[in-house]
Amino acid sequence: MSRTETVLQYLDAQEAQLRQRYFELLRIPSVSAQPVHAADCRRTAEFLAAELAAIGFDARVRETAGHPVVVAHHPGPQSGDAPHLLYYGHYDVQPAEPFGLWTSPPFEPTVVPGPHGDRVVARGAVDDKGQVMTWLAALRAWHEVGGGIPARVTALIEGEEEVGSPSLDAFLKENAAELKAADVVVVSDTNQWDFDTPAISTRLRGMAYVQIDLRAASRDLHSGMYGGSARNPINLLTRILGELQDEDGRVQIPGFYDGVEPVSNAQAAQWAELGFDEARFLGDVGLSVPAGERGFGALERLWARPTCDLNGIWGGYTGDGSKTVIAAEAHAKLSCRLVGRQDPEKIVAGIREFVQARLPKDCTAEVQVFALAAPVVVPVENRFVAAAKEILTDEFGKAPAMIGCGGSIPVVESFRRILGLDSLLMGFGLDDDQVHSPNEKFEWRCLTRGARAQARLLGALAG
Amino acid sequence: MSRTETVLQYLDAQEAQLRQRYFELLRIPSVSAQPVHAADCRRTAEFLAAELAAIGFDARVRETAGHPVVVAHHPGPQSGDAPHLLYYGHYDVQPAEPFGLWTSPPFEPTVVPGPHGDRVVARGAVDDKGQVMTWLAALRAWHEVGGGIPARVTALIEGEEEVGSPSLDAFLKENAAELKAADVVVVSDTNQWDFDTPAISTRLRGMAYVQIDLRAASRDLHSGMYGGSARNPINLLTRILGELQDEDGRVQIPGFYDGVEPVSNAQAAQWAELGFDEARFLGDVGLSVPAGERGFGALERLWARPTCDLNGIWGGYTGDGSKTVIAAEAHAKLSCRLVGRQDPEKIVAGIREFVQARLPKDCTAEVQVFALAAPVVVPVENRFVAAAKEILTDEFGKAPAMIGCGGSIPVVESFRRILGLDSLLMGFGLDDDQVHSPNEKFEWRCLTRGARAQARLLGALAG
Repeated sequence: MSRTETVLQYLDAQEAQLRQRYFELLRIPSVSAQPVHAADCRRTAEFLAAELAAIGFDARVRETAGHPVVVAHHPGPQSGDAPHLLYYGHYDVQPAEPFGLWTSPPFEPTVVPGPHGDRVVARGAVDDKGQVMTWLAALRAWHEVGGGIPARVTALIEGEEEVGSPSLDAFLKENAAELKAADVVVVSDTNQWDFDTPAISTRLRGMAYVQIDLRAASRDLHSGMYGGSARNPINLLTRILGELQDEDGRVQIPGFYDGVEPVSNAQAAQWAELGFDEARFLGDVGLSVPAGERGFGALERLWARPTCDLNGIWGGYTGDGSKTVIAAEAHAKLSCRLVGRQDPEKIVAGIREFVQARLPKDCTAEVQVFALAAPVVVPVENRFVAAAKEILTDEFGKAPAMIGCGGSIPVVESFRRILGLDSLLMGFGLDDDQVHSPNEKFEWRCLTRGARAQARLLGALAG
Repeated sequence: MSRTETVLQYLDAQEAQLRQRYFELLRIPSVSAQPVHAADCRRTAEFLAAELAAIGFDARVRETAGHPVVVAHHPGPQSGDAPHLLYYGHYDVQPAEPFGLWTSPPFEPTVVPGPHGDRVVARGAVDDKGQVMTWLAALRAWHEVGGGIPARVTALIEGEEEVGSPSLDAFLKENAAELKAADVVVVSDTNQWDFDTPAISTRLRGMAYVQIDLRAASRDLHSGMYGGSARNPINLLTRILGELQDEDGRVQIPGFYDGVEPVSNAQAAQWAELGFDEARFLGDVGLSVPAGERGFGALERLWARPTCDLNGIWGGYTGDGSKTVIAAEAHAKLSCRLVGRQDPEKIVAGIREFVQARLPKDCTAEVQVFALAAPVVVPVENRFVAAAKEILTDEFGKAPAMIGCGGSIPVVESFRRILGLDSLLMGFGLDDDQVHSPNEKFEWRCLTRGARAQARLLGALAG
């Protein structure tokens, strides 16, 4: 029996222990966006550092301007030619609000039966705690029964991915010498194509996330006394934001499409072969009318076209019943997913210009920037992607789909820019995992098969 | 010394006692919009019934489908020819949110110095608890030292004015025989022209208040995974509501202007004489650019043109930082102030049509109706208005301005329609009283001068 086979058998035998460690991780409410959870974020970092230390890593919780980062190193085997892999993940999670829509407490992992067997419902079940567990489990198995971890490994687990990784670039720059020794970054924060089909993601959209704070009168006003004379900032905000897209869904922010490139014929043909069913994709969440830009295919809109989505809006009276008020302020959170060579900084400048041009001179608009990330296209012609294709085929009995990803993992661009490292995006989530939504879940089979795939990858790269 | 003079002297001497009763009333948080304050509303009704009982009224707290109504009767003098006055007021108040903007607790009345002497800061200070105190104080003074209340009096104090008086019409219909015996309704819920100049209001705008609940996907979605394919209900809501007004501020709801009439030349000339300074009116609240419909004068926009104001909006993530979510729902509260022969029911139908016409077929919009009130023009050629002009001139040393009012007092139209009674709108608020806003206040001098004017009116009508 090969060492890899021994490791895979061990993983199958140790599922109960894996579930226990995974649940312990999920119980810590590491919501990076909410200051009240700062201590929980640190506790999660400490938990993961201890996990890594237990399997022979030199593991530390390292400070940043925000939530801490876990960095751990393992020297690998004595023989000098093993590759050096940098595993990246994030331990922070999205806010769980609205709590009322969860069928079980978001930070108490709950096993429910599904069409593919057990699924675990919890905030962070898949994004990204569950995905991190796939490679932690694989490393542990190699450590326990494989004759030692067969590659040099650095683990880097950050705590601010869900708020746009504001501290990570500085951290990578300050620790570049230590981190750039790796050969490739392995990122597990993406999806399979479907339950039966693995996937390697080859592009990620970028992001510009802002909050717009509109202010009119110096105080809330009586809508009877002032209505018809005083500016209503909520009407104004809807008027401004209502013009973000034209009839065809084309975004009207100045310069928005600078750097957006058409998809190549070859790329379009490869995506067409995937047979994506948008009607089913939307039908699963109760929708039937595709949104986005008219004139583009579904996968192109999801992977290769930019978006402009309002993620939140609020102003005036939002309680029970009625209040006849003209508010003093109105607010919105707005994020754009970016592609090609779109520049997040220029997008923000365009948003400012767009808002300012529509503002009466007695109103003000502040645009706060929460996250900026450039889009990424990942090179696929290298031995790491080749190995991943092979081991995924072995594990799933089916070759991986080479797909795009509509989401953003800003750090992938940072690894390229700051450390000169490319990434391998191999993830085990499913489209219906409800990431960022109530009742986020991870299929237990996706986690265990992910761990097996990660173990196979280590074996294959070690030779 | 005439009886009226005795009563006025008594009022001047009893200010401390008046303040004590007034503060006790203000301390009860009778917020009609919020179910949590239902018991407080009832407690306020009981307080007022006791006040009226203490000065010889047959006073009762009467049930409705919502918050109770106080009804009290006083037979007046033995001689049979005294007029029968129906005093109307409301004991409920607007929500105090946002609490953080109050300089003192909203339900702990606080005296602060101002340019006109003491002012009392509290929710309801003027609207309408303070105004109700003007006629309660006058009735008490006549009872104590005037030889008895010199007119037949019915007091009707409701608890749902701030939520559109949903139960009052039914109450008036059920008790029409009891209430229609009055000759006129005296309503104190309006403003003076300025601190030195009294006013009689001759028109009130009507109201249609709705909440729009827009629903798209069956759950919140990840904006990376779904952005470009799934409908964003916040973008959609801003797009719909952003079209409510055109470039000239003209409301685009179908049929909106049906029944809106131009102001007569005579009316326009009378309003022009008032010398209203819109720049100052707006400047006092930090604004400088008049909003509303282009091409109309300031008082016409405030008193004789309809409005369409968003009073609240919410959806998606509104907490700290960022969350990359496409929400499942978005909501707004919308109210229109109405004039002329505009029909509130038709306005609501127009809003439904306006929203529905802009909805993709996989989204739904519910339009909940919170308040409907027809606009009112008050007759001024009668002995009650004549008497009010005279006594206001006596009290202020200056004739009252005959003004419009941009606000809505739905019950005025109900009194006309159900009981056949006209109203006299004589109020003592000021434009800067911050009604419906944080730090609502009432000038103590406005309250005491109001009480004196109410006492004079009773004396004048009694003959």
